Amino acid sequence: MKKFGTEKYIANLSIDCVIFGYENKELKVLIAKKKIGEGIWNLPGGYILKTESIENAANRILKERINLENIYLEQFRVFGNENRIIKSKFRELLLPYITQKYNEEDAEWITNRFVCIGFYALVEISKVNPQVGELDECVEWRSIKDIPEMIHDHNEILIYALEALRQDLDQKLIGFNLLPETFTMKELHALYEAVYDREFAMNNFQKKILDLNVLERLEKKFTGAQNKAPYLYKFKK
Amino acid sequence: MKKFGTEKYIANLSIDCVIFGYENKELKVLIAKKKIGEGIWNLPGGYILKTESIENAANRILKERINLENIYLEQFRVFGNENRIIKSKFRELLLPYITQKYNEEDAEWITNRFVCIGFYALVEISKVNPQVGELDECVEWRSIKDIPEMIHDHNEILIYALEALRQDLDQKLIGFNLLPETFTMKELHALYEAVYDREFAMNNFQKKILDLNVLERLEKKFTGAQNKAPYLYKFKK
Repeated sequence: MKKFGTEKYIANLSIDCVIFGYENKELKVLIAKKKIGEGIWNLPGGYILKTESIENAANRILKERINLENIYLEQFRVFGNENRIIKSKFRELLLPYITQKYNEEDAEWITNRFVCIGFYALVEISKVNPQVGELDECVEWRSIKDIPEMIHDHNEILIYALEALRQDLDQKLIGFNLLPETFTMKELHALYEAVYDREFAMNNFQKKILDLNVLERLEKKFTGAQNKAPYLYKFKK
Repeated sequence: MKKFGTEKYIANLSIDCVIFGYENKELKVLIAKKKIGEGIWNLPGGYILKTESIENAANRILKERINLENIYLEQFRVFGNENRIIKSKFRELLLPYITQKYNEEDAEWITNRFVCIGFYALVEISKVNPQVGELDECVEWRSIKDIPEMIHDHNEILIYALEALRQDLDQKLIGFNLLPETFTMKELHALYEAVYDREFAMNNFQKKILDLNVLERLEKKFTGAQNKAPYLYKFKK
């Protein structure tokens, strides 16, 4: 029987991560499928060591999960319903599996009520090599338009994360975490359309973004068809 | 020796509340002074029953503290440094006082590491009758420009709350919680200046607010000097 080490972690408090990436003009989220029954989809998550801050815990969970350090992370909301996990319809499904692997006390600990701190992360998909967790069958990048039913309240957590990302995109100018270092106005425009899932008139968008005074316009690269080449931009440091 | 009932609450997780009110063109915060030493200022806070949601816990704490129900509450950030409380310079000051009142186990529980969920509240000061808590000498409304040093990281919590309030004021149009039901444009303008602690040109401000299309303009009241009377507004439902 495996010893889970529940005494190392703060009880009743967990972290779940909504990991956003951007690829082929689509906003995507990294989700995992647990090896239980026909498979249960979930957001990657974990617990907080008694000796680490919540930010370090989120970073550690992401390092263990997707093998990447120093990525953009923001806490966005706490999910603290009194019935979280302990009265989830998935708890009965999970319990037999967990009691196979852990002793009774640890299984009880794991399926107790948990208040969850939601973090979202922004990553470049091409730089990420997602790891399959101990309980996972697979991990997948899925378009935000194609998210399956997930465990507990994870679909709700994703909705709040997306709302926070939209709010932060303008105010904190975090979009550059989803783009390569240099990009065209058209590429930035496509990112905004993907994140907000709606169209923006290109002229208004360009004016709004340039008015923010956060972009540095780079020289056009001589290509032989120079007057058709779009300008490249990067975010000012 | 008093039994604190730590077994009723989730360990290592607390709530602190930044209660904003608006009076005499000043944004104010309700803070309390503990009966310890020369007095230690702090934000009102408390713990979460195992059987209640975090939102209900915040509401209960505010009801116990300021005797008001159904007020506007928003969670805004989690404070989860690994040294919170347990390595606070105030812990040594608190411990003798707490061990006088509680048994050793409860005193240990109370001064352990706590991850704190910050909520802010918006109230009408005239409708509030603040209660002195069990450990408090007094509670006071203090201008955000005149906040003393507070316990642990409470000054930092206040700074984050103020930032969240500023961000939400435009986006969630929550200002009406700080104003009487009807108000003049000048009164709304003064509220914005107090919250942001800076001046807004009246013309631009009026245009921006009216463009949001959230205000309903009421009839001018006949006063005998009608052409000088300002319009009254209220927020659309």
